[in-house]
Amino acid sequence: MHQTSLTFRTRGRGTTDITFEVERAVAASGIRRGTVTVFLQHTSASLILCENADPGVRRDLETLLSRLAPDADPAWVHDAEGPDDMAAHARSILTSNSLTIPVADGKLMLGTWQGLYLYEHRHAGHARSVVVTVMGER
Amino acid sequence: MHQTSLTFRTRGRGTTDITFEVERAVAASGIRRGTVTVFLQHTSASLILCENADPGVRRDLETLLSRLAPDADPAWVHDAEGPDDMAAHARSILTSNSLTIPVADGKLMLGTWQGLYLYEHRHAGHARSVVVTVMGER
Amino acid sequence: MHQTSLTFRTRGRGTTDITFEVERAVAASGIRRGTVTVFLQHTSASLILCENADPGVRRDLETLLSRLAPDADPAWVHDAEGPDDMAAHARSILTSNSLTIPVADGKLMLGTWQGLYLYEHRHAGHARSVVVTVMGER
Repeated sequence: MHQTSLTFRTRGRGTTDITFEVERAVAASGIRRGTVTVFLQHTSASLILCENADPGVRRDLETLLSRLAPDADPAWVHDAEGPDDMAAHARSILTSNSLTIPVADGKLMLGTWQGLYLYEHRHAGHARSVVVTVMGER
Repeated sequence: MHQTSLTFRTRGRGTTDITFEVERAVAASGIRRGTVTVFLQHTSASLILCENADPGVRRDLETLLSRLAPDADPAWVHDAEGPDDMAAHARSILTSNSLTIPVADGKLMLGTWQGLYLYEHRHAGHARSVVVTVMGER
Repeated sequence: MHQTSLTFRTRGRGTTDITFEVERAVAASGIRRGTVTVFLQHTSASLILCENADPGVRRDLETLLSRLAPDADPAWVHDAEGPDDMAAHARSILTSNSLTIPVADGKLMLGTWQGLYLYEHRHAGHARSVVVTVMGER
């Protein structure tokens, strides 16, 4: 068992590929086979497993989420931090805050086209904390 | 490894903060570092990690879900248990039934504003079973 | 700890009940108590926990997802593999690629009405790989 925290500084709404950083934390753990749980300690950002070849997929995903949970929706009562405040919480809940990924040979067992992304849902950049817990055998 | 079942009696559609009960189950396990998997054994309720300070966030979340998956939608063919039957299944699938959260110092590593909620999607109250599995080291 | 890969050949858009195959992998592991993580190595299909009695629920779920993320949406820029390409990625992200389920007595601790389904979101059939990792004690 090995646990570590990673911090990512986002630049506002959009996705950041964190596959490499999580891969590195798994390698550093010395655990060869098991699982890694990636957990985001925030409710206005999220984690997704997304196609990693065409950036158009993430652009379309942004279209989808801004349609399902629009900024400044007149129905939102929670807007203490601005028009993107509630939209960000809604997007977070429609996607994921916790992902568990199998590990083999000390590496994430992702599919060929799978990347692990941190999705910032606020318009402003934030420091986002991710807890990586690796469990299994050496 | 430690596994226990918790039952929550809901009062109909809405959220119940279950952070404390899960925290207590983790403390009782004696495990200090690892993960806890919280699993809901139902398909018409769900688990969410949500902002825990302003109740307006959960009110807006209710607005969002009732818009995405309305009760009594004329398109639903499954309505054996009433107009909220299929809507409840749909809301459950758009959110989560299983969450894995890191544990350190015998506590959930939640962010400052993160609470763990059981979300009842049926209008009537139900008894809901949650299985808590703690894995790690003492 | 025990890890195995399963391959499912889908017949195009729709759900396949994989509860039995995952149950069998858990039984083969010899692990009696713990968790099983089921992970799908694709971004245009997903895993869901769904009501397993009335097929109408899965039909309605299809109605829901095709409404939230329509094929051939004029807004999609990613359509390299056809009009269902981006819709499939979107549906995958609105549902799940990774589920962790508690295990007791060597069996999945699913609720009475819970089934584990592989959801193919492309119109064509595909071979889909699922990694099953069982952790716990004998």
